[in-house]
Amino acid sequence: MIDKLIEKIIEKRNPSVIGLDTQASYLPSYKDIAGNADAARRILDFNKEIIDATFDIVPCVKVQVAYYEMYGYEGMKAFAETLTYASSRGLVTIADVKRNDIASTASAYSTAFLGKNDLGQTAFASDFMTVNAYLGIDGIAPFLQDCKEYGKGIFILVRTSNPSGRQLQNLLVTLNDKMLYEIMGDYVQEWGKELIGKYGYSSIGAVVGATCPEEATKLRQAHPSVFFLVPGYGAQGASAKDIAVSFDGKGLGAIVNSSRAILCAYKKEQYAHLSPAQAARQAAVAMKKDIGAALAEKGIDYSSLTKGTRE
Amino acid sequence: MIDKLIEKIIEKRNPSVIGLDTQASYLPSYKDIAGNADAARRILDFNKEIIDATFDIVPCVKVQVAYYEMYGYEGMKAFAETLTYASSRGLVTIADVKRNDIASTASAYSTAFLGKNDLGQTAFASDFMTVNAYLGIDGIAPFLQDCKEYGKGIFILVRTSNPSGRQLQNLLVTLNDKMLYEIMGDYVQEWGKELIGKYGYSSIGAVVGATCPEEATKLRQAHPSVFFLVPGYGAQGASAKDIAVSFDGKGLGAIVNSSRAILCAYKKEQYAHLSPAQAARQAAVAMKKDIGAALAEKGIDYSSLTKGTRE
Repeated sequence: MIDKLIEKIIEKRNPSVIGLDTQASYLPSYKDIAGNADAARRILDFNKEIIDATFDIVPCVKVQVAYYEMYGYEGMKAFAETLTYASSRGLVTIADVKRNDIASTASAYSTAFLGKNDLGQTAFASDFMTVNAYLGIDGIAPFLQDCKEYGKGIFILVRTSNPSGRQLQNLLVTLNDKMLYEIMGDYVQEWGKELIGKYGYSSIGAVVGATCPEEATKLRQAHPSVFFLVPGYGAQGASAKDIAVSFDGKGLGAIVNSSRAILCAYKKEQYAHLSPAQAARQAAVAMKKDIGAALAEKGIDYSSLTKGTRE
Repeated sequence: MIDKLIEKIIEKRNPSVIGLDTQASYLPSYKDIAGNADAARRILDFNKEIIDATFDIVPCVKVQVAYYEMYGYEGMKAFAETLTYASSRGLVTIADVKRNDIASTASAYSTAFLGKNDLGQTAFASDFMTVNAYLGIDGIAPFLQDCKEYGKGIFILVRTSNPSGRQLQNLLVTLNDKMLYEIMGDYVQEWGKELIGKYGYSSIGAVVGATCPEEATKLRQAHPSVFFLVPGYGAQGASAKDIAVSFDGKGLGAIVNSSRAILCAYKKEQYAHLSPAQAARQAAVAMKKDIGAALAEKGIDYSSLTKGTRE
């Protein structure tokens, strides 16, 4: 699955992801919403408009399940249909669900997002999902199994973008004098070694916050086969320069998420004359340019990226 | 909310939880199931039978969402209705969802299980939910807020019951020469200090596996106000003696979960003449006795527990 993502990135010449964290309050029709079912329908319609306006310029969408769960099972129906619609438009999909459990329970989660259940049906079919590995390999093995069986991928939380991520993730562990996030990075690289594709990256990736460029730099150097999903650009304050450290010398190795700045672009003065969908498109174009410029400063010419095997 | 749970425990003289991890394959009618919607309906019916057969002897149910997510949004409807039905029978409910994210996303998760959304509606209303704190206080604060506002509680993963929990949780951290799980325990106690009820326990509790009696002993001593949710009894191999260390000298401080051994009791030879519901009841009675005997060995007379303020 990582090869498919990388080829979409190369094809669109754009390593960015639109995060469909669509809260009801983001919708122009927010005040007219009557209950959970209505909210779910309107959120789905809004998502489809955003997808229609951007699918030709971005390779991937990330759908944050929390905003759908808060509208109950009807919200979850909109979550499933958003993923299906994005796939139908040729986008790679990431279910941002941060699931974690052990053994048969982890297997049930994996089934829900990556595989097929015991009735042979899918639930919330996605290409990738995010996973929390605090429980160790017992909680990861079932996902690895489905990644192999169904050609899917996962991103494991390594260093999150929030300030208090450091409370646990930056604790210094006596083992090898490393911080916890570095040990998590070591595990991610180890767990993913059987799923490395033709570009040298594994379908078992890592979430590494844009707001932690120092940690990202260390992780990029230490874990050459781990692809990064990078949150925190834009609304959380990280710049394109901060995210450039997550890329390799060829312009691969990371994909950068932006949610609110895209979905709510229509609320900004500069885009106020546009529809939400058209404003989202303009914001997505601006983000692509911003990242491209930061990579160009590192000597990476994104427009020259080509598909094919890397050594 | 912790006071309500403790009073139900005292009232039933039973510190055990039935885990409704109802996989379709647990149902007698498994082979007749036609698709996700049918699976969801049958799982809900099965859960109601189990609840009807046990609500007078157990204080609490824990519903593991992974087994509902794997049947899509229809499964999530069954999840919501299982929680509602259990509440209607007077049971305390724990949504075992292990959610984790930051800021507004954590807030959306908290809304989904503990609070009300921006339309004033609930989604999967529960008394407690389980939470993963790898992201630090940013990922916990929104839940604390809802615990205060709505009188709810959470259980934070501290030391999980699976063997590979040690891969991260038992790493020795240079800070104070403690292991990661001990530091997580310290945080849980600190985060919960404003939510301590009249029995001396906080509504911010910890998940501490029955399979780790050494760690549980340390945590019980170090964190007197942290209530434990204890998985791993039965199917995962922990005995009642292993779980006794999680209780305080008065027989409080922990609630013990059993899922498969209750739900699938009807498949055991000794209960083969009973319906699934009646077999579940017998297994729940046996579990209560088993735990009671282990506590009696510690000198705790469970039958003498009374409600009222503890010093």
